[in-house]
Amino acid sequence: MIKRLPDQPTRCEGVAANGFVSTVTVADDNSGSMYQQAKEALANIDKNLEKLGSHKSKILTAVVYVADIRQKPELNRAWDEWADRANPPMRACIGVQLEGKDLVEIIVTATT
Amino acid sequence: MIKRLPDQPTRCEGVAANGFVSTVTVADDNSGSMYQQAKEALANIDKNLEKLGSHKSKILTAVVYVADIRQKPELNRAWDEWADRANPPMRACIGVQLEGKDLVEIIVTATT
Amino acid sequence: MIKRLPDQPTRCEGVAANGFVSTVTVADDNSGSMYQQAKEALANIDKNLEKLGSHKSKILTAVVYVADIRQKPELNRAWDEWADRANPPMRACIGVQLEGKDLVEIIVTATT
Repeated sequence: MIKRLPDQPTRCEGVAANGFVSTVTVADDNSGSMYQQAKEALANIDKNLEKLGSHKSKILTAVVYVADIRQKPELNRAWDEWADRANPPMRACIGVQLEGKDLVEIIVTATT
Repeated sequence: MIKRLPDQPTRCEGVAANGFVSTVTVADDNSGSMYQQAKEALANIDKNLEKLGSHKSKILTAVVYVADIRQKPELNRAWDEWADRANPPMRACIGVQLEGKDLVEIIVTATT
Repeated sequence: MIKRLPDQPTRCEGVAANGFVSTVTVADDNSGSMYQQAKEALANIDKNLEKLGSHKSKILTAVVYVADIRQKPELNRAWDEWADRANPPMRACIGVQLEGKDLVEIIVTATT
C-alpha cells in the first residue's frame, strides 16, 4: 500500500510505503534569497512529513540540490537553524541546474 | 537476499531487496533528442521493473538527471505520456553533466 | 530505531533503519587526484558500512557525484578496483558542482 501526496497529475510531492517515506520540496516563493528559499523548502518538508505520518526527528537522508554551490553557506545557515540536533540526517549538498529561479530543491527520506 | 540485474562486471542496472527495488536507465540510442531519449529511458524502466518483480504503478520516487535543464519541457512531454496518473511518483528533475551524448538518466525506486 | 554515525552537530555520515543503511563519503584529503579521492571515498564507504552493520557485498545502489564528468574514467578505475564483482551495485555517475576541492562524493544504500 503506497500513500501519495497529490501535487500534479503525473507527479506527487511525497510517498509512504513499507515504513519509509520520501518527499521533495522547493520554496513556495522562488523570488527569495538562498536563505529564504531554503527556509521555506525545509518548512515544506516538515509539513509533508507530517502528512505522511513521519517527523523531522525520523529523517534518514537528505540530498540538497542548490543552483549555486558558492551559496552553500546560506543553505547551511537555514539548515542549521532547522535541523534536529538530537537526530541529525545524513546529508549531501550538490550544485546543479534547477528550473527558473529556484535556488534550492531538497529530497528527504525518513521512517514512519 | 538481493536480486541484481546484470549489466557490467562492476555495476548492475537494478536491484531488489526487502520489498523495494531501484533501477537506473538511459536511452539505448543516445543520438536521439531529449524527447526520444526520455521515452526510451522510461521504456527501459518499465522493462527493468518487470524483471525485478515490480511495476510502474508501484513507483515511489524518480530522480531525473538531464544534460540541459532548458530541455525539461521535452522531458516532461515524454514523462506525461508515460506516467501512471493513478499512481504518480514523487519526482525531482535536475540539470547535471552526463557522459557523452546522453541527454537523460533516470533512477527510480518502487515497491515489489 | 535509527542508528546514526556522528559527524557534525546538524548532519551525520550514515544511518541504519528497518534493514537498510545509507552513507555519504568524500576523500579525507581533497588535494588528491580524482583517482586518489575516489579511492579514499570508497574506503570510507567500507568503514562506514561496517560501523552500520553492513558490508560492500550488500550494497544496493550508489550515486557518484563528480566535479568533472570528463574525469569519469579515473573514477571508474578506482571503482573497478574496489567493487565486489559478485555483488555489483546499481550505479549512476553524474557531473555536478562540489564544494572546494572535492572531486568526488558518493552516496550508497545497502541492506544490513
